Amino acid sequence: MIQTTPFLGELIGTMVLILLGNGVVANVVLNKTKGNNGGWIVITAGWGLAVMAAVFTATALGSPGAHINPAVTLAFAVLQGDYSLLATFIPAQILGAMIGATLVWIQYYSHWEATDDPGAKLACFATGPAIRSAIPNFLSEFIATGVLILGIVAIGNTNITSADQGGIPPAIGPYIVGMLVWSIGLSLGGTTGYAINPARDLGPRIAHALLPIAKKGSSDWAYAWVPVLAPLLGAAIFGFILRLFSF
Amino acid sequence: MIQTTPFLGELIGTMVLILLGNGVVANVVLNKTKGNNGGWIVITAGWGLAVMAAVFTATALGSPGAHINPAVTLAFAVLQGDYSLLATFIPAQILGAMIGATLVWIQYYSHWEATDDPGAKLACFATGPAIRSAIPNFLSEFIATGVLILGIVAIGNTNITSADQGGIPPAIGPYIVGMLVWSIGLSLGGTTGYAINPARDLGPRIAHALLPIAKKGSSDWAYAWVPVLAPLLGAAIFGFILRLFSF
Amino acid sequence: MIQTTPFLGELIGTMVLILLGNGVVANVVLNKTKGNNGGWIVITAGWGLAVMAAVFTATALGSPGAHINPAVTLAFAVLQGDYSLLATFIPAQILGAMIGATLVWIQYYSHWEATDDPGAKLACFATGPAIRSAIPNFLSEFIATGVLILGIVAIGNTNITSADQGGIPPAIGPYIVGMLVWSIGLSLGGTTGYAINPARDLGPRIAHALLPIAKKGSSDWAYAWVPVLAPLLGAAIFGFILRLFSF
Amino acid sequence: MIQTTPFLGELIGTMVLILLGNGVVANVVLNKTKGNNGGWIVITAGWGLAVMAAVFTATALGSPGAHINPAVTLAFAVLQGDYSLLATFIPAQILGAMIGATLVWIQYYSHWEATDDPGAKLACFATGPAIRSAIPNFLSEFIATGVLILGIVAIGNTNITSADQGGIPPAIGPYIVGMLVWSIGLSLGGTTGYAINPARDLGPRIAHALLPIAKKGSSDWAYAWVPVLAPLLGAAIFGFILRLFSF
Repeated sequence: MIQTTPFLGELIGTMVLILLGNGVVANVVLNKTKGNNGGWIVITAGWGLAVMAAVFTATALGSPGAHINPAVTLAFAVLQGDYSLLATFIPAQILGAMIGATLVWIQYYSHWEATDDPGAKLACFATGPAIRSAIPNFLSEFIATGVLILGIVAIGNTNITSADQGGIPPAIGPYIVGMLVWSIGLSLGGTTGYAINPARDLGPRIAHALLPIAKKGSSDWAYAWVPVLAPLLGAAIFGFILRLFSF
Repeated sequence: MIQTTPFLGELIGTMVLILLGNGVVANVVLNKTKGNNGGWIVITAGWGLAVMAAVFTATALGSPGAHINPAVTLAFAVLQGDYSLLATFIPAQILGAMIGATLVWIQYYSHWEATDDPGAKLACFATGPAIRSAIPNFLSEFIATGVLILGIVAIGNTNITSADQGGIPPAIGPYIVGMLVWSIGLSLGGTTGYAINPARDLGPRIAHALLPIAKKGSSDWAYAWVPVLAPLLGAAIFGFILRLFSF
Repeated sequence: MIQTTPFLGELIGTMVLILLGNGVVANVVLNKTKGNNGGWIVITAGWGLAVMAAVFTATALGSPGAHINPAVTLAFAVLQGDYSLLATFIPAQILGAMIGATLVWIQYYSHWEATDDPGAKLACFATGPAIRSAIPNFLSEFIATGVLILGIVAIGNTNITSADQGGIPPAIGPYIVGMLVWSIGLSLGGTTGYAINPARDLGPRIAHALLPIAKKGSSDWAYAWVPVLAPLLGAAIFGFILRLFSF
Repeated sequence: MIQTTPFLGELIGTMVLILLGNGVVANVVLNKTKGNNGGWIVITAGWGLAVMAAVFTATALGSPGAHINPAVTLAFAVLQGDYSLLATFIPAQILGAMIGATLVWIQYYSHWEATDDPGAKLACFATGPAIRSAIPNFLSEFIATGVLILGIVAIGNTNITSADQGGIPPAIGPYIVGMLVWSIGLSLGGTTGYAINPARDLGPRIAHALLPIAKKGSSDWAYAWVPVLAPLLGAAIFGFILRLFSF
């Protein structure tokens, strides 16, 4: 059996999330890759399964909860009235995301030089809107985060309530949560690229700014507040609403 | 643990169904989205996983059965000879579908203006036939609903009969039902877009008529009876046939 | 709870298999469908999930084994030295397949007239080779059937051996077998369209010959022996080999 | 119940892996196949499900562990400090891969002659880099193997730790591991085609050199060391790191 600490569990879990999640974007949008131009089905399946792999990893390495997402950590803190995990989990998640983004840069090392479009390169790190417009972009991330929080709570709730009648085994939860994220990507990701996770966007955007990526362009900091604040606000509000119905 | 009422469970479950289900259509058919032109695999996977997420949600929030579909409610009523849920469930399902459709309008807010084709916009709300012809369209929805009812009963039956030998845990049921709907979409959805659910079609069609969608066209009320009556008739008939074999 | 007879279970299970399986082909190859030109991923996912739905149905309706395939029935007969099911199962499977093919004809009623290519129409009923050549076509079906038989036995075996340690619940088996058939389609279906099931090919071919399909062409009886004999021979030989290792 | 020996379990499991895994490549890249030009989603889903089928097969036929990959065998040997399986497993895996590759050649027999590009034919046996450059190619295989080893250990660990609370049933493990490999292919396979398994690359490359494939070209031995050494080095290093955290 393997065990590390909650900090390392969240860090390595989020690292795996970003390595696999941003990896599939690189595979589809960078030039000369084998998955080039693979389409939305490839990107969304890749992100969904990345969540599955990351939640398994975080769980196995000792994270209680395996959130790999500050919005999830915040939502459960509000829902349960216990904010003690935030100070440990959120730095681990952001740091893990930065390391994951760096691994994507190494994984696709020869393909940055082979790609001319700096926007495609940024897309391998951070999200950007299909049509830039602050309020609709914010609402998109807010709604998609709400579905994520509601879905995770529902899956976990089903698990708890039906444990005696053969509910979801906790260890199949990571797969089901991955399918939920695949769903959100397919259905709600068409506008802003579904960050729904501040660490997923901020960590790689910092990495994009710092790394010596061949022929890179702007890190688009003007947009960076949307995928950080909208998921956090959504998590707080949906966590609060769910608390009203919890007992 | 979370719990609301059966009415709220059906309402919010159906809201999630339509937000994710019609969301994937919007992602594929509206202009400038990231999933634009993603193809039938994207639409059908999106609807299948939308069902999964919606059934988890409805279950967690307290709906006994988690039908999110008047045809399913009717089929079980006929099968079990107990019509008491209809008056609560069906209004909740239609109202939930209208709210879900409104959320799709918000989620893709900037993309309605960016899309010229009013038919594409209606497709993000209600179904329409590939080749308009009343009897074949009606039969398509009737047959597809029959597969849905038979499949749901079969999955549940397997669950019940094999519980002691390790049958499907009730809480994995939502995933399996989602896969069933993915199957129906892939195989039988090519003709009328597989409403197979009166609330899924009627609620969003009302929303389409009421909402100030940019440059919208007709709500095509002439076709609206098919995706309402064919699933209900199919549900009643298949529920009755299954009742003959139940004990 | 629902229960019918083994005969009806196999008949209706195979009917569902063909309705969904040939339905997805119709959706992809007929003109003006919503899934038109959806590609190999659509066809193979559709067939895999068709198997899942069909096995659930056959199980729920009372078939012991839920074979929905004469090759599977034969392989288990050889493996277990008990040929008593053949006389009941195989006619049920062929008859169910004919009814399923008739339902596909009804489901896509308007699209036969809209499609000119008679080869595309036959593909919605029976398989045909990509490159016609008797021995390679026969070997393709033989090898693919071998993988099917070995896989089904392996899945069932894992189930039995690990039941006490939490093996595959019998009722999740239909999903796993569906994924196995998705795999076979993706990987081995490129040559002959993976009949791997005599009833799946023969029943619909008879239906194609009998039904008044608009502007239909030949039923290609010259090829019909391959998808019948190769799966049966594969089933017999692989059933016999597996019997040598059973105890 | 079926049982053979660990050697035969690994051999036949790896044979199934390569028959299905290289089979899907053949279906997509060879001329005149039904899956021709099916895209990255077809290839990666095909490989993921090939792993599922192969792990079920190896388990059922008596392999303890069902590694079907020398890198996995090595990683567990380092992690557990027990190298006794290597001498049995690795030859079985390479021999099984050679037989599997030969079956792919038979399965697609008519399509080698129909395909002009010798590079496409080699791709049906061994991996090759999208952009040839030794260090980045090596790092790609090293990182992807690390995700594989970490993921498998995490899935197994979750299984062990949560067995009493309803952890992953051992027999659902093959499906989850298949999904992990689908993920790795989608996200990390764009550079070198994700060998992540020395037997998967070396066995079929030997088969390519030996078989009388119509109009074949070079077996590209100059690249062969990368997909053998990088996975083995990754397995050793990640096995060692995980050992530091095991107890």
